[in-house]
Amino acid sequence: MIAKLTAIPGSIVAARGFRASGVFCDIKRLGTGKGSAKGKKRDLALIVSEVPATVAGMFTTNQACAAPVKVCVERVEKGNAQALVANSGNANACTGRQGLKDAGEMARFTEQALTLPPGSVLVGSTGRIGVTMPMDNIRAGIIEAAVGLGSTPDHAAQAAEAIMTSDTKAKQVAVEFKLGGKSVRVGGICKGAGMIQPGMSATGKRPAANPLHATMLCFITTDARIEAKVLQAALREAVANSFNRITVDSDMSTNDTVLVLANGLAGNPKSGGFGLFQAALSHVCLELAKMIVRDGEGVSRIVTVRVNGAKSFSDADAAARAVANSPLVKTSWHGGDPNWGRIIAAVGYSPATVVEEKVDIGYSAPGSRDILWSLKRGQPTKATFKALCAAVAPKEFDLHVNLNLGRSSAVIYAADLTEEYVDFNKGDVTDPTSLGG
Amino acid sequence: MIAKLTAIPGSIVAARGFRASGVFCDIKRLGTGKGSAKGKKRDLALIVSEVPATVAGMFTTNQACAAPVKVCVERVEKGNAQALVANSGNANACTGRQGLKDAGEMARFTEQALTLPPGSVLVGSTGRIGVTMPMDNIRAGIIEAAVGLGSTPDHAAQAAEAIMTSDTKAKQVAVEFKLGGKSVRVGGICKGAGMIQPGMSATGKRPAANPLHATMLCFITTDARIEAKVLQAALREAVANSFNRITVDSDMSTNDTVLVLANGLAGNPKSGGFGLFQAALSHVCLELAKMIVRDGEGVSRIVTVRVNGAKSFSDADAAARAVANSPLVKTSWHGGDPNWGRIIAAVGYSPATVVEEKVDIGYSAPGSRDILWSLKRGQPTKATFKALCAAVAPKEFDLHVNLNLGRSSAVIYAADLTEEYVDFNKGDVTDPTSLGG
Repeated sequence: MIAKLTAIPGSIVAARGFRASGVFCDIKRLGTGKGSAKGKKRDLALIVSEVPATVAGMFTTNQACAAPVKVCVERVEKGNAQALVANSGNANACTGRQGLKDAGEMARFTEQALTLPPGSVLVGSTGRIGVTMPMDNIRAGIIEAAVGLGSTPDHAAQAAEAIMTSDTKAKQVAVEFKLGGKSVRVGGICKGAGMIQPGMSATGKRPAANPLHATMLCFITTDARIEAKVLQAALREAVANSFNRITVDSDMSTNDTVLVLANGLAGNPKSGGFGLFQAALSHVCLELAKMIVRDGEGVSRIVTVRVNGAKSFSDADAAARAVANSPLVKTSWHGGDPNWGRIIAAVGYSPATVVEEKVDIGYSAPGSRDILWSLKRGQPTKATFKALCAAVAPKEFDLHVNLNLGRSSAVIYAADLTEEYVDFNKGDVTDPTSLGG
Repeated sequence: MIAKLTAIPGSIVAARGFRASGVFCDIKRLGTGKGSAKGKKRDLALIVSEVPATVAGMFTTNQACAAPVKVCVERVEKGNAQALVANSGNANACTGRQGLKDAGEMARFTEQALTLPPGSVLVGSTGRIGVTMPMDNIRAGIIEAAVGLGSTPDHAAQAAEAIMTSDTKAKQVAVEFKLGGKSVRVGGICKGAGMIQPGMSATGKRPAANPLHATMLCFITTDARIEAKVLQAALREAVANSFNRITVDSDMSTNDTVLVLANGLAGNPKSGGFGLFQAALSHVCLELAKMIVRDGEGVSRIVTVRVNGAKSFSDADAAARAVANSPLVKTSWHGGDPNWGRIIAAVGYSPATVVEEKVDIGYSAPGSRDILWSLKRGQPTKATFKALCAAVAPKEFDLHVNLNLGRSSAVIYAADLTEEYVDFNKGDVTDPTSLGG
């Protein structure tokens, strides 16, 4: 945490002028009758600013892109909005024209329920792909959520719960800092546990030279006064160094979405001091991104892969992703096995330029520069197997790979691969409601 | 099987003039004393032609490339050889100068033991990475193997066992066909179960515009009379459509090697008729490649991913590999879940150009054109969940993805991801000999 940022409670209602709620409206159609075995986890969230806000967004670059993403890309482009509605239990992806109609209807119905102008509500969805939305349930949920809006931390927690799917924990954070003499707040909630290797851009289109790689949803609110263009630039930077740097299982979702609403109620000066805002937004995004990895499906160990000395950023990124997504590396992490052979094999087959005789591989505690090297210049060091096992035994550690070919570096926040991940995701076809997106 | 090819026994000794053997020389240094709990699986194989042969090879494009691969690339370039020695239990990879020296010594020692000219022996290794070779054991093994050479199917089976690592079955095949009035035989053995997504080229260098992705080892013998250049072209074609089209776990090894020795003893005409030789070699490679996928670590289901209608081969290949390597798709296969949402998500995040509204996804029995479509033009069909579950219930099935954008296609032979794979590869750090490459 940067010294000038203070952690505060309330996540998305921490900033002035925001209210939130979360309700259960049975989007998975589990049945709500008495005796239903399924719990009634909330599944529809509403977040509203009391005044119009500027908005920025980042969206999945998956070419199979969900209807709510398409709706948001178009609406965010205008630069302002005032509320957002999001559901879990149904991704509204691969649902064709009906899906687009339903996503639009979710927004319009929310506008009516809150008496907001047309075009001022954004939409997010996560859950099973290819099932059309249960719009009667959605409409009932929106009305209930609108009635239930409030600005206590409990209201924010309801919304954080409502967007969860396979998440085991709600994910929330908020910070406060001074900007031009005014107190400014930034807070967010997010969800994501599987189908996690986001690669988002502002338009949902891929940057030509930068192929990117959950459903993850993240909604951020701030009372900063900031122009939409500046906000978008800040969000792009924050996402590039947080959500776009995590992987649980290498699968990029059809629905990944990050949205920020900035309503200006902090009253900070219109220009200047945005370095600190950037730091706050980046901090919020990174904390939320790390929560996703820690709560990844079946995850038992968290590994931060730090590649240094690459010829270019894209080389560093490619090498880090190859290691972070290698099933053999990930299973060795699960086993507590310091198997550098699998690591150098993954680095070697990555698209990055690598010279085997120059590669260093080592371990440290999270964030520490005190590295135990297992490989130096392509050769095993004298570190004992016992010492290396001890280095990879903690629940979280850093893996350092130095290619010693240049000055570029990249970090990927990764996780191990466990029997629990496989068991969870193979599902149970005798109970289709158990099957994930 | 092509009608003109006849399956015959004997694999690598089926062709005239070849002898083989396999011995146990304790390359993993498990100890051989009485009471040792570990079995004495053979771990060193020898294959020898009684006359000089032309040779061709294909090698891993991993930039961390094992010493025996470096030795073979150099030797195969000359175009002829007479024998090959291969071991399991140690990959001789990331072993630096000592590794190169040891790989060279394996070849030279075999030349001496068999009184063959310098440069006439090729080397292959598979096993744990980063451990120097136990050369005393290797030398003792080579002498014992040289003494034990023979040309019965049992001798071939010994060699096939000796190259196994995590394989549960020896992998062998041989065929016979007529070429220019002469009977010609082609046979091979191979190994591989994990670290399997070969991407081999003739030089071990990557084709610039074609990023490729086990250790797998494959040794083929034939009595065909064929020039080295023609043999190399035939092998490149055969490998491109077999070993380079399989994936178990998306990890490319440091050691992947395919070698063919052709000793000419069939006496076929020097030119002409090589279409049939190509068919035979391609058949042998494809049968062996499929055996690797079927025996993949923890594998319970085999899926042939057939992408059609792509704009280019590289698009078709990229889409097929994205599906074949997606942890979420692979776990759904394990669970018998016809989850097309995960499949279209993988296709959508692949580098291939995809238009969601055009994508068809369906299933058939292996090789059948009778396809049950789950998705047509991006929309779910009326196929029932029960019918789709039945389509993905068999141990082997074909998955058809039609992008409907062009005329290019690609096939990938893939497998599911199981708890057993994870359990096997996390290993047991209290027993380092259990830890794989």
